[in-house]
Amino acid sequence: MEETGRPLMSAGTSYEALSVETLPDRLKGLAALAGKVGADSGTWQVQEVGDGNLNLVFIVIGPTGKAVVKQALPYVRLVGDSWPLPLYRAFYEYHALTRQAARDPGSVPEIFHFDEAQALIVMEYLSPHVILRRKLIAGEKVDGLADFLGRFCARTAFRGSELSMKSGDKKADVGLFAGNVDIPAITEALVFTDPYYSAEMNHHTEGLAPVVDRLQSDVALKVKVQQALQRFVSNTETMVHGDLHSGSIMSTDRESRVIDPEFAQYGPMGFDIGMLCANFLMAYFSQPAHRGGELEAYQSWILDVIEEVCSTFETEFRHLWATERTGILYPASLFEDQGHDSTPACDAVLSGIWHDAWTVCGIEMHRRCLSLAHNADFEDIADPAARAPLEARNLLMGAELIHTAETLADARAVCALAREFNRKDVL
Amino acid sequence: MEETGRPLMSAGTSYEALSVETLPDRLKGLAALAGKVGADSGTWQVQEVGDGNLNLVFIVIGPTGKAVVKQALPYVRLVGDSWPLPLYRAFYEYHALTRQAARDPGSVPEIFHFDEAQALIVMEYLSPHVILRRKLIAGEKVDGLADFLGRFCARTAFRGSELSMKSGDKKADVGLFAGNVDIPAITEALVFTDPYYSAEMNHHTEGLAPVVDRLQSDVALKVKVQQALQRFVSNTETMVHGDLHSGSIMSTDRESRVIDPEFAQYGPMGFDIGMLCANFLMAYFSQPAHRGGELEAYQSWILDVIEEVCSTFETEFRHLWATERTGILYPASLFEDQGHDSTPACDAVLSGIWHDAWTVCGIEMHRRCLSLAHNADFEDIADPAARAPLEARNLLMGAELIHTAETLADARAVCALAREFNRKDVL
Repeated sequence: MEETGRPLMSAGTSYEALSVETLPDRLKGLAALAGKVGADSGTWQVQEVGDGNLNLVFIVIGPTGKAVVKQALPYVRLVGDSWPLPLYRAFYEYHALTRQAARDPGSVPEIFHFDEAQALIVMEYLSPHVILRRKLIAGEKVDGLADFLGRFCARTAFRGSELSMKSGDKKADVGLFAGNVDIPAITEALVFTDPYYSAEMNHHTEGLAPVVDRLQSDVALKVKVQQALQRFVSNTETMVHGDLHSGSIMSTDRESRVIDPEFAQYGPMGFDIGMLCANFLMAYFSQPAHRGGELEAYQSWILDVIEEVCSTFETEFRHLWATERTGILYPASLFEDQGHDSTPACDAVLSGIWHDAWTVCGIEMHRRCLSLAHNADFEDIADPAARAPLEARNLLMGAELIHTAETLADARAVCALAREFNRKDVL
Repeated sequence: MEETGRPLMSAGTSYEALSVETLPDRLKGLAALAGKVGADSGTWQVQEVGDGNLNLVFIVIGPTGKAVVKQALPYVRLVGDSWPLPLYRAFYEYHALTRQAARDPGSVPEIFHFDEAQALIVMEYLSPHVILRRKLIAGEKVDGLADFLGRFCARTAFRGSELSMKSGDKKADVGLFAGNVDIPAITEALVFTDPYYSAEMNHHTEGLAPVVDRLQSDVALKVKVQQALQRFVSNTETMVHGDLHSGSIMSTDRESRVIDPEFAQYGPMGFDIGMLCANFLMAYFSQPAHRGGELEAYQSWILDVIEEVCSTFETEFRHLWATERTGILYPASLFEDQGHDSTPACDAVLSGIWHDAWTVCGIEMHRRCLSLAHNADFEDIADPAARAPLEARNLLMGAELIHTAETLADARAVCALAREFNRKDVL
């Protein structure tokens, strides 16, 4: 692996985007890839698969196996070269993947090779995994999903923080990830700001204007959203995935992995689980347009997943608190060693996490219907007249979450709220 | 000036501590110093003045002027070479001073030269300034003190945050200061942790044991203190001075400057003003042992200073909010541009600042009587029997502040509390 302590701050002269045609010749000398798929690059079949909004992704199929080659482009793929985006995001993705693999083994694809100059990562081809969002739209269940995701969020939150890490290691990592400016800037603008004014790239389904007006006129709401932005940009509690939605999860019917952490940064411990729950809630609200008879059962399953993700998170976090609290925060010297139970301290930390999480959850529910990047859950609903009322429920519940985040009892209360909004005709 | 983007992480072979004897010969080639005090180093008079706990400080007097030469030692001066401390703190002090000078012009000594390898800063000799703590012990007033300090805290807090700074500049600075591990570690241990258990370096006045027991048995208090530590280590709202007590301020009877920012780091916007108010409160509580007839009037003056520091902070912060809010946080696009007053947002930010400030204030009041580094305000009281009851008032008010920080109305309420504790016999 080529690896340096700091990312290259601009593309070297050697960077060149791969294509289906050039990939075999350009990567044939790469032992990590040849060892996986076979040495004779003439036998390689290469497929390009869009990964969504940002990068080039190829599947390389050879006589002995398959691998994924992911390469950053120097601009936002969704928008084009009018929106440049530094290649160094591959550097952060690589570092995020190695940290996630260490903090929750088996949760992310295996990395075979990283080439910083080419902004290129060769990694495990996941099969027969598909993007979880597609499964949710298709009405498919995934065994063990909630357990996996709750554990992933708890382990990466706890083990990336000064609850667990040595202070010097954590500060060095904060310094490293502070070099990532342009990727967080996307979140800062598209997630936390654009939905709340008439930003240039905003678009929304016809008929939603009254709801949009209501959100953009709610000063108290905007204050809370911007307080969450302030925490997002100036709170380095742990390394967050930064984009943990159902398009960043790949699943079979019984196994899941988390992918695409190029939005990784140090941020609030509640950020990932909040964004994740928002995406399950959007899956939930969109179901009436995707399901027939199984609607109620499948919607219930989604809410069960949310409740279980959150309860697993709590259980795992408390377990790590009891067994791995080796950092400088809430040390045993102040609690257990004095015969004092540290549970009230853990309660307080979790309470802060949920406050952040439900606020972020509400914000993510807004931006996915109002800002640049919408969700297939809603976008796949062809008829705007069918889509708008479902999006309206989602938008208004988002506002309710932001307003009440500090006092919400738990995920059960959030799911009860979802059932309530799911019955409402708000347009 | 020699300057690099990152600090040297260990002493080069060329580092050598200066002494009164070697200084003229070693620094005679330094144009910045010679230009100030005179070119003929044979005429220089050099005095060493302890700056307190960490460094070597010399005054160089020559035929044309005076200058201060401050050099870091590779260990904690107060403790000795058993406690090594990296020289790179001079790098952070230099960078902190330049930022403070830009954010609040005239607030810090002028810098003439920085030599990273020698961990050495040549700076303005302040005269007839003396350390503010000495003036407070002597019962001397300083005109304009509260205005100066309130403005300094507000300007450095606001202008070092993403309320004002460009996101990329601020993140680069967070990355730079993240390299400073060992200095924040002192604060993390001595301020936020040691007072609340029997730490090895703790010491306290005879007779305080019942109060110490009470604090160390208060689990809810320790939870709040550790939450404040969590914010201190993982909140990068602004560049804080990090050690803003009355020993880091030099004053004449009408002019003041802030010195010694080697504890600078990115931290909560309320940190500096909280620590500052604590040191005024300790000056207040110690007065009965220092004053005769003028006691009441001088104590009232100290509380007036606290109230005015805080009201100036609020006024200046709101002024900057209205006139310099050019960062990504709480943008005009979400408020003013939509015809919405952003005052509720500013209120919310200030409310968070005061919550942090009063918590830190209470913690600082504890550590200065219980942890390693005590204050001359109390230490100069020779008789432990006179000292203990005054320290007890201070300690218990500290606990009250930590418990009520979230709901305290304002500095006036804090000062009312101080008057109450000043009348109490708590031992």
